Amino acid sequence: MQIEVVTIGDELLLGFTIDTNGAWLARELAQHGITVVRRTSVADQADAIASGVGDALERTGAVITTGGLGPTSDDLTKPSIARLFGREMHIDDAVVESLHRRWKALGRSGDLPRSNLQQALIPDRAIVLPNAHGTAPGIWLDDARGRFVAMLPGVPREMRGLFTEQLLPRMLQRLAGAPTVVRSLTVRTTGIAESVLSDRILAIEGLELEGLDLAYLPGWEGVDLRLTARGLSAEEADARLARVAAVLRAAAGEHVYGTGTDDLAGVVLAALRAAGERIAVAESCTGGLLGARLTAIPGASDVMLGGIIAYHNEVKASALGVCRETLEAHGAVSQETARAMATGVRAALGASVGVAITGIAGPGGGTPDKPVGTVCIAADIEGAVQSFRAILIGDRHEVRQRSAQSALSLVRRMLLGTA
Amino acid sequence: MQIEVVTIGDELLLGFTIDTNGAWLARELAQHGITVVRRTSVADQADAIASGVGDALERTGAVITTGGLGPTSDDLTKPSIARLFGREMHIDDAVVESLHRRWKALGRSGDLPRSNLQQALIPDRAIVLPNAHGTAPGIWLDDARGRFVAMLPGVPREMRGLFTEQLLPRMLQRLAGAPTVVRSLTVRTTGIAESVLSDRILAIEGLELEGLDLAYLPGWEGVDLRLTARGLSAEEADARLARVAAVLRAAAGEHVYGTGTDDLAGVVLAALRAAGERIAVAESCTGGLLGARLTAIPGASDVMLGGIIAYHNEVKASALGVCRETLEAHGAVSQETARAMATGVRAALGASVGVAITGIAGPGGGTPDKPVGTVCIAADIEGAVQSFRAILIGDRHEVRQRSAQSALSLVRRMLLGTA
Repeated sequence: MQIEVVTIGDELLLGFTIDTNGAWLARELAQHGITVVRRTSVADQADAIASGVGDALERTGAVITTGGLGPTSDDLTKPSIARLFGREMHIDDAVVESLHRRWKALGRSGDLPRSNLQQALIPDRAIVLPNAHGTAPGIWLDDARGRFVAMLPGVPREMRGLFTEQLLPRMLQRLAGAPTVVRSLTVRTTGIAESVLSDRILAIEGLELEGLDLAYLPGWEGVDLRLTARGLSAEEADARLARVAAVLRAAAGEHVYGTGTDDLAGVVLAALRAAGERIAVAESCTGGLLGARLTAIPGASDVMLGGIIAYHNEVKASALGVCRETLEAHGAVSQETARAMATGVRAALGASVGVAITGIAGPGGGTPDKPVGTVCIAADIEGAVQSFRAILIGDRHEVRQRSAQSALSLVRRMLLGTA
Repeated sequence: MQIEVVTIGDELLLGFTIDTNGAWLARELAQHGITVVRRTSVADQADAIASGVGDALERTGAVITTGGLGPTSDDLTKPSIARLFGREMHIDDAVVESLHRRWKALGRSGDLPRSNLQQALIPDRAIVLPNAHGTAPGIWLDDARGRFVAMLPGVPREMRGLFTEQLLPRMLQRLAGAPTVVRSLTVRTTGIAESVLSDRILAIEGLELEGLDLAYLPGWEGVDLRLTARGLSAEEADARLARVAAVLRAAAGEHVYGTGTDDLAGVVLAALRAAGERIAVAESCTGGLLGARLTAIPGASDVMLGGIIAYHNEVKASALGVCRETLEAHGAVSQETARAMATGVRAALGASVGVAITGIAGPGGGTPDKPVGTVCIAADIEGAVQSFRAILIGDRHEVRQRSAQSALSLVRRMLLGTA
């Protein structure tokens, strides 16, 4: 089954509201083998709604809308779509009754405001989808050709409740047994460029994606490889995803740190825990970001002792014991300083693992020798120290995020013995 | 000028990615009087791209796309749109040259991966929009009827840079006079509940919004008050926004810390700089987040010395000098411990201001006396110490973010003398 989603609201076109409803619906529908083939956002205007929904109906015959069902005059979804189907509107007594009940149940005084009655206006021969989470009912409107538009309110909580309780069961009835699903599996990599990864994968002899889609999703955490299976049974989809993911994992090698929504900080904490290690961080340009990453994971406290934010060079010397000679001879951004910071924080906090970051996040502070984005990262695991220097891309925010990710990656690979 | 935005990517239709690019573009365009009349998301498939972009081009003759310009085989935007315009593609030598330069500047070894060369394929008679933020250039393609499609990459940082530096100037050249605009102004508050703020504003005698829309936008940073002017000249919009914002500022009083996208960390750094102070942070449950907030601001290094992440109690005693008696008598999450941490970090790092956070971010660790969300925050400014205890709402992430914001707010109000 193919469907289109039309989200309605001026705020979407002005960019004040981010369209989370459309994304949520797409995820839920995919879980049940229903493919969203296009998403559209239109304004709160009768013409725009009729044109956006009408075009979608022409293409797929199956449309879900969100928004524009409220009690105010800018809520035009129902009349615009009723006109598309050539229907009049009537006041639905059952809806009026339920609006009154809800008004009383909330302990409101006085009569139901007249504007609420607009929510009881229902297109002729439509099916009302009762809303247990708010005042605006959903509407299901179909025609003799079997085409339908399902209208849901725009408030995310109400939209989600109505979809799950009322709309989804109705749609699943339409599907003859729901034979196929859309399923995906993401392999997460870090420390390897998208183009290098792509070349490696294309070089696999007899590479067989078994009909799955492969997407490369680069970001500051690394490059995610997302495999998507469409039009298969759940069992077949899972089997193919597992087989192809194994091939990709082999190609990306030690750069793979997890799948799905795995966070590298959580992966590193688990590896430290398994090895009986306790970690401390020393941060210059990241200023606490690495510590924040590690402590964002619930239960970090058995492994993460803390750290020292040595933003100013004086703190690198006084709190981390970096020799002034090292700072002067090699500079604050050098592998020598990073190594001394890692060893220093390990000693200062009584940890078995110390990890350090020093770099130039920009926008200022770059030199020809050490341009913006230069970072030096070191880790000391029980006295064995490794370090590297890299030039990371992006603005200040991204350089800092990539630095923290690179530091986590170094610790992970040292624990695995692949650094 | 009316325009449509088409965002391209399977991840948008599967709901894995929320379409922040479309919202950002809509806001930026509205600022310049350009109205987004429809937004569409289509899959990474040649047919879907051609149909989505083609329909939009028919309706408005002006389209911006994002996504699908990367180096991999699922990047189909350029060939699909070139075909719409009946154009072939060619390898652009200048783009090849810039890809090679970028590869070398990043210090990468070996040759440029072959996959990257796909990014140098440009439709005939297109204008290349150079990308200073990544490898994928933008493309401007127009026809004899003056219709155009502008293609931007999907990575938000690159998309934003290219739009602002290359595309917007080109579009503004096309506009003759831009008579009315949509403009908004946001007043940022923290430390006051939305309902209290609303009551204060409704209580203003003779409150006159001058036809502007007022929205309350609560989040972990506080409550933003957003005023929006529509359908006015730029001058009139700015004058009304300034007048009404002044009224709102007076109502919210000391809780107002800025306007627009002002960040409280930047505001606090500026206040510290003006007062000749230097700050150090001591963090338990936030684990580095407060340090990361302060060091996210470029130029923080003259004011921010660093800090100590004392996640484990042992570190609170050894590195911050919190007495074991204090920890035992009052607990790690207590105003006494927070005050000792603030004074301790100030002494340890030689700062004039110390600020400390200790709390229970959850999901575990709560007790009837100290439920999840309990935080104690203290600041020591040249020996004058203030502290408070609060119960913050939200999940672990939100409690930690709110804690850092509350600590910044305490420092700001102490410097202003309104704490």
